[in-house]
Amino acid sequence: MGADPSLFVFGHLATPEHLAGEARRHLAGLYHGGRIEPRDPQPGQPVGVLVEVGSDAAVDRVWVRYALDGTAPDRTAPIAEARRVETRWDDLAWAYVDRWLAELPAQPEGTAVRYLVYGRKDGSAETMAADGAPGRDPELFGFGVDRLSSPCWVEDAVIYQIFVDRFWDDRSDFGRPLTRGDEVYGGSLDGVRERLGYLSELGITALWLTPIFAAETYHRYDALDYERVDEQLGGNEALASLVRAAHGRGIRILLDLAASHCSWHHPWFVDAQRNPNSQYRSWFTFRRWPDTYATFFGVPLLPKINTHNPEVAEYFSGMASRYLTEVGVDGFRLDHAIGPPLVFWSAFRTATKATRADSYTVGEVTLGPGGLRQFEGRLDGCLDFPLLQAFRRFFVHGGMDAQAFHSFLAHQERFYQPGFTHPSFLDNHDMDRFLWAAEGDVRKLELAAACQFSLPQPPIIYYGTEVGLSQKVGAGSPFGFEACRLPMLWEGQQDRELLAFYRTLIDTRKRHPALRRGSRHLLRAEGGVYAYTCRTDDDQVTVALNNSAERQAVSLPGVDGTDVLSGASVRGAVSLAPLQAAMIT
Amino acid sequence: MGADPSLFVFGHLATPEHLAGEARRHLAGLYHGGRIEPRDPQPGQPVGVLVEVGSDAAVDRVWVRYALDGTAPDRTAPIAEARRVETRWDDLAWAYVDRWLAELPAQPEGTAVRYLVYGRKDGSAETMAADGAPGRDPELFGFGVDRLSSPCWVEDAVIYQIFVDRFWDDRSDFGRPLTRGDEVYGGSLDGVRERLGYLSELGITALWLTPIFAAETYHRYDALDYERVDEQLGGNEALASLVRAAHGRGIRILLDLAASHCSWHHPWFVDAQRNPNSQYRSWFTFRRWPDTYATFFGVPLLPKINTHNPEVAEYFSGMASRYLTEVGVDGFRLDHAIGPPLVFWSAFRTATKATRADSYTVGEVTLGPGGLRQFEGRLDGCLDFPLLQAFRRFFVHGGMDAQAFHSFLAHQERFYQPGFTHPSFLDNHDMDRFLWAAEGDVRKLELAAACQFSLPQPPIIYYGTEVGLSQKVGAGSPFGFEACRLPMLWEGQQDRELLAFYRTLIDTRKRHPALRRGSRHLLRAEGGVYAYTCRTDDDQVTVALNNSAERQAVSLPGVDGTDVLSGASVRGAVSLAPLQAAMIT
Repeated sequence: MGADPSLFVFGHLATPEHLAGEARRHLAGLYHGGRIEPRDPQPGQPVGVLVEVGSDAAVDRVWVRYALDGTAPDRTAPIAEARRVETRWDDLAWAYVDRWLAELPAQPEGTAVRYLVYGRKDGSAETMAADGAPGRDPELFGFGVDRLSSPCWVEDAVIYQIFVDRFWDDRSDFGRPLTRGDEVYGGSLDGVRERLGYLSELGITALWLTPIFAAETYHRYDALDYERVDEQLGGNEALASLVRAAHGRGIRILLDLAASHCSWHHPWFVDAQRNPNSQYRSWFTFRRWPDTYATFFGVPLLPKINTHNPEVAEYFSGMASRYLTEVGVDGFRLDHAIGPPLVFWSAFRTATKATRADSYTVGEVTLGPGGLRQFEGRLDGCLDFPLLQAFRRFFVHGGMDAQAFHSFLAHQERFYQPGFTHPSFLDNHDMDRFLWAAEGDVRKLELAAACQFSLPQPPIIYYGTEVGLSQKVGAGSPFGFEACRLPMLWEGQQDRELLAFYRTLIDTRKRHPALRRGSRHLLRAEGGVYAYTCRTDDDQVTVALNNSAERQAVSLPGVDGTDVLSGASVRGAVSLAPLQAAMIT
Repeated sequence: MGADPSLFVFGHLATPEHLAGEARRHLAGLYHGGRIEPRDPQPGQPVGVLVEVGSDAAVDRVWVRYALDGTAPDRTAPIAEARRVETRWDDLAWAYVDRWLAELPAQPEGTAVRYLVYGRKDGSAETMAADGAPGRDPELFGFGVDRLSSPCWVEDAVIYQIFVDRFWDDRSDFGRPLTRGDEVYGGSLDGVRERLGYLSELGITALWLTPIFAAETYHRYDALDYERVDEQLGGNEALASLVRAAHGRGIRILLDLAASHCSWHHPWFVDAQRNPNSQYRSWFTFRRWPDTYATFFGVPLLPKINTHNPEVAEYFSGMASRYLTEVGVDGFRLDHAIGPPLVFWSAFRTATKATRADSYTVGEVTLGPGGLRQFEGRLDGCLDFPLLQAFRRFFVHGGMDAQAFHSFLAHQERFYQPGFTHPSFLDNHDMDRFLWAAEGDVRKLELAAACQFSLPQPPIIYYGTEVGLSQKVGAGSPFGFEACRLPMLWEGQQDRELLAFYRTLIDTRKRHPALRRGSRHLLRAEGGVYAYTCRTDDDQVTVALNNSAERQAVSLPGVDGTDVLSGASVRGAVSLAPLQAAMIT
């Protein structure tokens, strides 16, 4: 699979070798992985806890010890015995696998269930805990019994991702790097505020700001202080002003929170390394104190925060809640959400929702759909990386025809539970921009965007994509993060036609509930031609995409209206130029 | 996994890359793979037909067309509609997968159900068949509705595999190659008959003879004529004499049938290549007649027989039935049973059982347990390659401790349905001999054999293993087939102590039903020490194995008896030398 450029999203995570390694690693012991049934327990529902055990680690008894007050269960806590429900053979793990199921009793609304999973080795008194790493405490699992879901405003949102350093500052020379080699461009929160008019006119209803907390680098995914907005961006005041001004225009603000790691110069880590009795020592994972510690992907500058520590979980829940109430932000995009355990997010979401019921939590989860679904009931949603991959495969790289692409979308609509959001995007700050990948062919971007804006999940636009921002020539190979983070184009630099196209898409999406919450009905999916109707009881929009190099006549029986993208009237059929989209209302 | 020597059995079949390739290949279309529930339908049971469809090949309808008279269903045959029962994400195939289930109505005993599985492409009228290769007819599936099972005699059998050319002939110089380089040693069926006394005294109750049909090579897996016993082996007469003599001693005879391929000099293939209108042209698969055709693992000398052809299936059923009735053999070891489709074996078994209800059909299926289990209801059993691998891992190569080995065995006892046999073996003619792999350490062989003879499935001994036959020095690396097919050792060449050990094992197994059909109860599995009691209502044998380099004191509470392997009496504990086994009755 390595040769397939569309796999850039998942890299080695999607390789058979990696999957086999994971399967073997999991099944060498007890594996739970947080899998419960139902995935998002409601008040009054018993909850099944699924445990798998590979035959190399056979057990003759499995049980779950649980507590109902949000703390880890102790030895006096009640237990639920599991029963073996299946013995299967797993080719990938090359082992027999037993599936055990324990049932936890139904609980009233608001219960924070926490539990540990244990097994007893066959023929011995030895017990082992599920998912536990050697030398670590047993892994704590948990879920909230609640009726929480993604807030209503998200369903209608059009989200705009701003890489703050690269967006705007009111300097005459913005667009050129300021300092530190080519790295700092000096974009600021005041700059964002000054451009709210532009965003508002475009039709944006929510901004996702890349991290704004005090940090060492221009990207700020290495926080020095989560309590303080970076002075270079304008500090706390600038954020408060931006939030007020954005809200005045009906635009929500999402902050980007990296809770899985921070800077090695963060005072917590400095103290933890210097002081053997530091209260922060347990906030990190020292394999050998003070110099050997868990890091984010092996980078010593980025120590991993020990999000298994309840104090840490409490800190982040509290910190996020303060931004919600004191600053008035509307939610969080959660960086590297697969870093912390699921129970961390469960607690985080419960706390932030208690603070502001209409706040939004969306995770960056770079896994396949099976991985995303694990976050159901734990977060309001996950960024839709699998869809991103499908977009790239169908519209850019090949490897999916219209039939396969349609099928992917149709399956995805059935796969996730209603209320779990998975916002769509064509690119972000960690990958080659779509337009670059499409070799600058704006028609391909328009085609993909037309599709993106007709799907039921909230679309995200990465800053600049709507005005033709691409990458430096020659900067794309091999991929470097700088390549896709060029400064925003303004005024005369912008592709006005493309911008007008995006405005039309957003405007049409706002006027037509069928695009936001309709059901989709296939008209044609063949080769490069993909056509469907989005429908609610009293609204209907038909989308026809010609993802091919030839003109295509697409018959659209019963469709009678205007293609908002070309202005042409359509009656029962449309003739599409190569890479042309039609959106008929 | 390639580095693990214990994987020699499955080679690339167990690699993640291969598994991922298979998963993607299957799920690029409709995949059935013969999976039905129950796996061995009994009279009066409705049968679920499971179909999986990857999202690249989405369908909006799946149905099964079936016939009840053993022939392929035609367009007038009834259909059973399937319903979609699950949508899941498959990481390995990297696709969504829908599971569909159709239910075929219950049938009376003796019904030969044949069926085809179809799907309709989502949004089109196009249909496709499950498991069909491009340009081929749809794959025919089938099963028999019956109460057939493995014959009773197999449960108590001790099977001995004879590589006929290498076993014995009454020549003064037997043991030296005759002709064709080093290949032909001139072993014969008369030779086998002359050694029945030896086999009988050893305690053997069934012989599996490697192929004896007229062929070109010494191993005879390349038949020239399935109707005729090779003259070099003594011809039809010698087989008849051997069968009579063996039966006189209560020894059954199993023939080795390679139905998946034959010699390119077989008259069928010669005619099929020469004559464009040959009746045998459809008995093979010509990709481009006459020179490009399907072969056994790419060897042109071994054309694949088209076992999808009903005429071919009928031929082999008839031929096998004639050997059962006219010659009186007792069953078949079926070479490369994963070559022909499952429906071929279903028909083969139905026909041979109708001819002789006590005949036995056992397949060579070089797959993991999941693959073996597909043969439930289609054959009486499969040679237990997964157990072979576990034997090698625990007793020779490492990679399994006693706990993991026990767990493997315990799972395997639950995994297969009762009545589906999976005979055990330590080596065969296609792999390095156990003793060679154990670097000549006879203690390891004895330890493994003691275990083998205490498990409930019928044990197979590969000729010579019981008397210390190993391989040529230097012949083992890289592995060549010749290395493990040296001529049998006789008289003074034999390791008399090892032979006595084997006799004791067989004798004890015969005297103790607990070893053949008891349940096993773990006493200890830790590091290299593995002890368990085999128990029926009125019999009990305790086995203790010290698979370690240290002397071990093994406590055996309540065990009071004699170790038949050492003669020592045992009372509640046993002290075992390194690599020593005890079998306490």
